[in-house]
Amino acid sequence: MSERPVTPLLDQVHFPADIRKLQKSELPQLADELRAEMISAVSTSGGHLGSGLGVVELTIAIHYVFDTPNDKLIWDVGHQCYPHKIITGRRDRIRTIRQGGGLSGFTKRAESEYDPFGAAHSSTSISAALGFAISNKLAHKPGRAIAVIGDGAMSAGMAYEAMNNAHEAGNRLIVILNDNDMSIAPPVGSLRNSLARLVSSRKYLAPRRLAQKLARAMPGPLHRAARKMEEYTRGWVTGGTLFEELGFYYVGPVDGHNVEALVEILENVRDAEEGPILVHAVTKKGKGYGPAENAADKYHGVVKFDIVSGKQDKGPGGGPPAYTSVFADALKAEMARDEKVVAITAAMPSGTGLDKVEAAFPDRTFDVGIAEQHAVTFAAGLAAQGHRPFCAIYSTFLQRAYDQVVHDVAIQNLPVRFALDRAGLVGADGCTHAGSFDLAYLCTLPNFVVMAAANEAELVNMVHTMALHDSGPIAVRYPRGNGRGVPLPVTPQALEIGKGRIAREGKTVAILSLGTRLEEAEKAADMLEAKGLSTTVADMRFAKPLDEELIRKLLTTHEVAVTIEEAAIGGFGAHVLTLASDDGLIDAGLKLRTLRLPDSFQDQDSPQRQYDEAGLNAPHIVETVLKALRRNDIDADAGAIA
Amino acid sequence: MSERPVTPLLDQVHFPADIRKLQKSELPQLADELRAEMISAVSTSGGHLGSGLGVVELTIAIHYVFDTPNDKLIWDVGHQCYPHKIITGRRDRIRTIRQGGGLSGFTKRAESEYDPFGAAHSSTSISAALGFAISNKLAHKPGRAIAVIGDGAMSAGMAYEAMNNAHEAGNRLIVILNDNDMSIAPPVGSLRNSLARLVSSRKYLAPRRLAQKLARAMPGPLHRAARKMEEYTRGWVTGGTLFEELGFYYVGPVDGHNVEALVEILENVRDAEEGPILVHAVTKKGKGYGPAENAADKYHGVVKFDIVSGKQDKGPGGGPPAYTSVFADALKAEMARDEKVVAITAAMPSGTGLDKVEAAFPDRTFDVGIAEQHAVTFAAGLAAQGHRPFCAIYSTFLQRAYDQVVHDVAIQNLPVRFALDRAGLVGADGCTHAGSFDLAYLCTLPNFVVMAAANEAELVNMVHTMALHDSGPIAVRYPRGNGRGVPLPVTPQALEIGKGRIAREGKTVAILSLGTRLEEAEKAADMLEAKGLSTTVADMRFAKPLDEELIRKLLTTHEVAVTIEEAAIGGFGAHVLTLASDDGLIDAGLKLRTLRLPDSFQDQDSPQRQYDEAGLNAPHIVETVLKALRRNDIDADAGAIA
Repeated sequence: MSERPVTPLLDQVHFPADIRKLQKSELPQLADELRAEMISAVSTSGGHLGSGLGVVELTIAIHYVFDTPNDKLIWDVGHQCYPHKIITGRRDRIRTIRQGGGLSGFTKRAESEYDPFGAAHSSTSISAALGFAISNKLAHKPGRAIAVIGDGAMSAGMAYEAMNNAHEAGNRLIVILNDNDMSIAPPVGSLRNSLARLVSSRKYLAPRRLAQKLARAMPGPLHRAARKMEEYTRGWVTGGTLFEELGFYYVGPVDGHNVEALVEILENVRDAEEGPILVHAVTKKGKGYGPAENAADKYHGVVKFDIVSGKQDKGPGGGPPAYTSVFADALKAEMARDEKVVAITAAMPSGTGLDKVEAAFPDRTFDVGIAEQHAVTFAAGLAAQGHRPFCAIYSTFLQRAYDQVVHDVAIQNLPVRFALDRAGLVGADGCTHAGSFDLAYLCTLPNFVVMAAANEAELVNMVHTMALHDSGPIAVRYPRGNGRGVPLPVTPQALEIGKGRIAREGKTVAILSLGTRLEEAEKAADMLEAKGLSTTVADMRFAKPLDEELIRKLLTTHEVAVTIEEAAIGGFGAHVLTLASDDGLIDAGLKLRTLRLPDSFQDQDSPQRQYDEAGLNAPHIVETVLKALRRNDIDADAGAIA
Repeated sequence: MSERPVTPLLDQVHFPADIRKLQKSELPQLADELRAEMISAVSTSGGHLGSGLGVVELTIAIHYVFDTPNDKLIWDVGHQCYPHKIITGRRDRIRTIRQGGGLSGFTKRAESEYDPFGAAHSSTSISAALGFAISNKLAHKPGRAIAVIGDGAMSAGMAYEAMNNAHEAGNRLIVILNDNDMSIAPPVGSLRNSLARLVSSRKYLAPRRLAQKLARAMPGPLHRAARKMEEYTRGWVTGGTLFEELGFYYVGPVDGHNVEALVEILENVRDAEEGPILVHAVTKKGKGYGPAENAADKYHGVVKFDIVSGKQDKGPGGGPPAYTSVFADALKAEMARDEKVVAITAAMPSGTGLDKVEAAFPDRTFDVGIAEQHAVTFAAGLAAQGHRPFCAIYSTFLQRAYDQVVHDVAIQNLPVRFALDRAGLVGADGCTHAGSFDLAYLCTLPNFVVMAAANEAELVNMVHTMALHDSGPIAVRYPRGNGRGVPLPVTPQALEIGKGRIAREGKTVAILSLGTRLEEAEKAADMLEAKGLSTTVADMRFAKPLDEELIRKLLTTHEVAVTIEEAAIGGFGAHVLTLASDDGLIDAGLKLRTLRLPDSFQDQDSPQRQYDEAGLNAPHIVETVLKALRRNDIDADAGAIA
């Protein structure tokens, strides 16, 4: 599967400076070799494929023309950066990508000086590039900043805010719009490459500047009229007026796979005295690899695959369904039952399962693009008018709509339902995608109900509970990956708000579990029972409101209690401690411990190893209990853990 | 000062239905009376004046033309809603605005069915209106949604995200751009009213629709060309292409103070079959009241004033400086000392004190408009390239950039400095402006340093500490209002990260104070000493990292300990409890209590009364201590509190 391609030119390239030694005419061959190397690498490692294949030529052209790393190249989102990593000193590790101890699947400052600004969430690149450009301007240093951003990422408000502020950077800022037409985006024109080259040539820029200078010299209204005339003429020719309204010179569209043409255009752009400039490059996701080009998702993210057939090594299959899929089916059932239920996603239809929902209920499913802020307040408006909206957004991406969650939903106590997929640690995507903070940032808000599903059957019941909950906002969090294999309820049950359940009854130790650590809690209980410690395990279900009655009972009738959650400090455990303090339960002594994610950002690895590193697996629970009890068999267990 | 104006027409108007009984020709007089009534009311109550005066005619015209409350009128931000409140059943309470128990200074769902969606933060109106419009569309109900949004609010990404999604609403959505040119905004044209009326008349819309239908019937490229031609022609005439690129029909500009013309235009808009439509109204902030029109800030927010002279009743003056002003002076000193320090605000130059900073350092001060997301990542880019950026953003508004704080700053551990003004309760602006959640949402993040200033001298030292802190992100929070009057340091001192200080040494009770409750903590200590309880007061300074050594010492050497902070659950107190639990300090019994904001959104009132309601004043500390000690003199104190 992984016979290495023959890559004589690429073998000479260790850093971008090596590319700059090549003739322009050699670049197409380099592109072919880089593409072959990338396909070979990802076929053995898995990872993001389609988006990287789409920018092979852009990657080469940018590094050929610009003086990286002095010029700052910032890849938006960053999952298209594999070719970039290969030619910036990381080819030897490219087959370790997204694995524990290996390269990150995104750009990362700690990895290379060629990654000046890390990413993973969308639409940050223009703001960051503007920061670099203005810093250079203030310091009177040379150096451009180049942001490469997809058409999907352009739909986020953040990109608009940045463009609206970009004029101060002048020609220090270049934005390359990587338009592969794979996402919702503002309407951008689509004309021919030759026009673009004309537009970007010095010859064209020169009279343009002249016209502007003339315009500036005229009195007010005439000045404006002349400028408008000039802008609309350009708009008419090239179709980029949205960007021009926001103060950019628009260049494009250009063929993003003609590397020699790209080089010429970028040389013109680099040498232009005016700016900021937006280059509109048209690319094809999955370019140059047939199976990817022909797949609906362009092989966006893949596991290991066979290069010849494109067949992905998805393992034996079967097994429990993914939480995402369980959620989607449960939501479909609610939508079938109640026509007021509607579903909203922000550009993640397949990631959230809403593609299945949309297939069944196209009129009541809304994909708003990469626009989480709008998604949440749009949902609030729907709720205010009597609909029952579910916002299906990854835990980490809901951070982008936090103010809307507070200001439009919580303060107004509107019944918006939040389905937070990818809660907790997420494996190969690493810390940028981990859903670590939702419990802290949601449970601090008045009016909110916050649930965590312990397994896929609980998730079904929680989705039903949410659909029925009209008195205020409610959220459920659940992890990436597959369920435990428990049977799903034929008829979903509505849960009583703020009530947990006892999963297993004991006497000495109480484990208060929130979410899918329940399985580890049950394993820990077995281990503790083996040591003669009778153990209660509670699936608390609600981080807010707490089941105060159950918590009081567990804390006062057991010798030691441990909370566990897949979230950072400030969430469930902190709220349990606060309750115990408010009640004065801690006055008389309370062996209560909280297990939570560590106070650090964890790199990518398998989720199991990440949770080991976090100290949230069964042995850690046991160790915590034994330490609290001051039992001397800790050392033996510590050995077992290591 | 408060002789009521004579308002015969307005006296007949209790609800919008009463306006609809009037002749169009009577509306200018109604506008005059409504304006007089508003000036009279605000002269006695204080509040937002300029923005309401700017929309008197718009308010009347919208209610005259549209079927409110069945049609949904959503005011962006909401501080321009006083005229709206007067004619929607709330005239009798308009002089209670922003006072405890009185009307809110913003729109509020709980107050009236004419306030379908509350606001206070900017740029939410289009998303919310779209929610109402789509809900009606799905339910096959009639009813439009009208969002009125300022040009400043249009600079926020959220507005762009909403516009980019608006096409689905068709003619159910109308956006009125209230362009008073008082804020940063995308470039919008500024032509004459007569053109706009032409554009908005049926006569004009009809051939336009025809042209579009023709265009649709043509084959691809020709279709697009024809559409472009038509769009640019309109753009050329009316100057609204940014909105047209985003799928709106642009109508404007129109004179926002000609109420009869507004009615005609809005009637055309209401009856149009195509949509969504954006009406660009040009207004004047402070319109019709000389002193407001002539003031630089157009009397944006005022205290009581004399109507004839416009003189505001600002009280005796003198007294301690405001925290905002202390911050600005401290930052200026840092910028004078270190040319790498730069300052960023998101459309709040005077609110954050950055107007003073900008006057001294115009090149190193950036107002990015209402664009908090961009502000934070722009700062991260500046920091990555070696500058030392201070982001001065109200605590409540930083919520809008939470993902950028997590993803671009914390994960990359970049030294961005956050100055969070208006932390804690804020008085007359109520719950939407309270800075209640920053401790929970920041302290949960790895890498962050989070400080709270106990007084204005501490703030100066903390600003200096931040300027020197290059190893990662750091934030300081401080309240609205004036300092305590303590002398400011001549030379600021750098604080040791993670170290608190003992403000007063005692033996039995320990009060761990974070932020400006320190004054109440000291009062409480006096009260406790009077009861024979020797009391230590610590100014903890750091919510993260905690001063673990000091906390351990205080908890283990005192009989009872109380934490206090001006923030909701999940912050400082929760972290202290977590430390006590991690350490096993709670095992042996620990009388530890956490005082914090209640789990509810508090309405506007004086800050003192708000903190009384919250239970965060000196008597509450005393009561908490006595309860924890099970002392029987509680009741006497409870009496003192009540």
